[in-house]
Amino acid sequence: MALSSLIPSRVKLIDVGPRDGLQNEKAPVPAEVKIELVQRLQDAGLKEIEVTSFVSPKWVPQMGDNAEVMAGVRRAPGVLYSVLTPNMKGFEAAVASRPDEIVVFGAASEAFSQKNINCSIAESIERFAPVVEAALAAGIKVRGAMSCTVGCPYEGDIAPEKVGELARLMKNIGVQRVDVADTIGVGTPRKVQAAIEATLRHYDIDHVSGHFHDTYGQAVSNTLAALEMGVWNYQSSVAGLGGCPYAKGATGNVSTEDVVFLLQGMGIDTGIDLDKLVDAGKYISDFLGRKPNSRVATAILNKRAG
Amino acid sequence: MALSSLIPSRVKLIDVGPRDGLQNEKAPVPAEVKIELVQRLQDAGLKEIEVTSFVSPKWVPQMGDNAEVMAGVRRAPGVLYSVLTPNMKGFEAAVASRPDEIVVFGAASEAFSQKNINCSIAESIERFAPVVEAALAAGIKVRGAMSCTVGCPYEGDIAPEKVGELARLMKNIGVQRVDVADTIGVGTPRKVQAAIEATLRHYDIDHVSGHFHDTYGQAVSNTLAALEMGVWNYQSSVAGLGGCPYAKGATGNVSTEDVVFLLQGMGIDTGIDLDKLVDAGKYISDFLGRKPNSRVATAILNKRAG
Repeated sequence: MALSSLIPSRVKLIDVGPRDGLQNEKAPVPAEVKIELVQRLQDAGLKEIEVTSFVSPKWVPQMGDNAEVMAGVRRAPGVLYSVLTPNMKGFEAAVASRPDEIVVFGAASEAFSQKNINCSIAESIERFAPVVEAALAAGIKVRGAMSCTVGCPYEGDIAPEKVGELARLMKNIGVQRVDVADTIGVGTPRKVQAAIEATLRHYDIDHVSGHFHDTYGQAVSNTLAALEMGVWNYQSSVAGLGGCPYAKGATGNVSTEDVVFLLQGMGIDTGIDLDKLVDAGKYISDFLGRKPNSRVATAILNKRAG
Repeated sequence: MALSSLIPSRVKLIDVGPRDGLQNEKAPVPAEVKIELVQRLQDAGLKEIEVTSFVSPKWVPQMGDNAEVMAGVRRAPGVLYSVLTPNMKGFEAAVASRPDEIVVFGAASEAFSQKNINCSIAESIERFAPVVEAALAAGIKVRGAMSCTVGCPYEGDIAPEKVGELARLMKNIGVQRVDVADTIGVGTPRKVQAAIEATLRHYDIDHVSGHFHDTYGQAVSNTLAALEMGVWNYQSSVAGLGGCPYAKGATGNVSTEDVVFLLQGMGIDTGIDLDKLVDAGKYISDFLGRKPNSRVATAILNKRAG
């Protein structure tokens, strides 16, 4: 057989649907629906859930109920609940909600950093530094999302060196682990591996996660490519929640269902009950009035319908 | 890097959209539309096209215009045009159309063989034998489609031994090359590799092609797994034509566009112009009154629309 021997025997999935997914929804989703979604995800076996974002409701009104959602989640032992905190103000608002982990959101592309968070990469790191310091002092874990690690909607291809440089900056300010994100879904196996390899110069394999978008249908194969490097942490989004803000109607986050199907089929332990996961995706999709954006969910729901 | 060194530097794609795809359409597609689709595929750089099927129009009325379509195709040098011929009667009807290759269609699952072609695997081989003999005598190439090589809608998992046995039977009657098809799309990398490995005991790597369905979103990663074994021939379907007859509304054949995106992104030569391919898929999808079932086509068409 020609697959790498580095493929792990177990994988941890971080469902980002409640935050990264629902943040991109135009229709408002009530706090109780978000809370129920988190409940269903943990019932399905998810051990990490990105719950909400502490950003200005002026910019992201979808997450304006962050404290209410965090307060409403009935936490299960062994599950990590993370929240996005882009700056000190957000962090201070988040602390009262007792997140297990905060997430800071950087970019490997200068143009994307400017357009998305209105500052240079260097400035974003300066802004994150006190947040990371405060979080660690408070005993809260810190994850760094590195967006546009393969391609950028403004700059095109991103050199692995830029990814390595961002990882170095993240490491310098104390970020404990990082996501290698293919934000616009243009990655293919060799490019994704190059981005991960650049990251591995600063973080060990246990502290690197893959975050792939399925815009061009490549997220599952990119997951396989990352598995072959030994990466065992991945972000995905139940029902493919989120869409792609850079290509109207296109897919964004890979669905958790499709990744779980890959992993289970390969005999890799995920701890996830695929049927319950499909139910969770159907729950939120029904609320949003559409079908899950997941091929696995589509096939399983069709099969159930007979 | 952790990808196999067996990955080929060029790949040949066999577009099965006009046959395997349109065969599953309920609405009749006029011969001139099929001819135009074949034209557009060859203009996009496809070097192998499965054009039609010579089966009884009682069973497959969609292909009743087989001779007309074959007569209408303006053949390009270096392009191989294949047709499905399930039996001697079909072969005799096909000969006048001068196909470069005929395809016989077997199954690694006994139950699927019975339900799909109304005979046992052994009987199907007996039926194919004179067809293969006649084709080779007439200087026509012969390909064998091996369906259900990973899973079967009736039997569930299929053991690699059954795939190897079917490959052996195909080889015995003179079939020159075979497709390892995951007909219901349940394959994942290790299972697909096991099916291919069983086939490689009877056929060398140049005579084995991968045929993956995207019902569970795994076709592109299964392509990566097959590439890592050195497989360099794949079937796919422009715009994901075909659907999955075993799961209503679900995806069948992987779209050629999604596979080309993988290959081009990996620096593998396909000779295909992706933009022209997307145009070909849009042409037939517009005719069918729906959107292409391809994430790449969706993303590229959205991008063009701005």
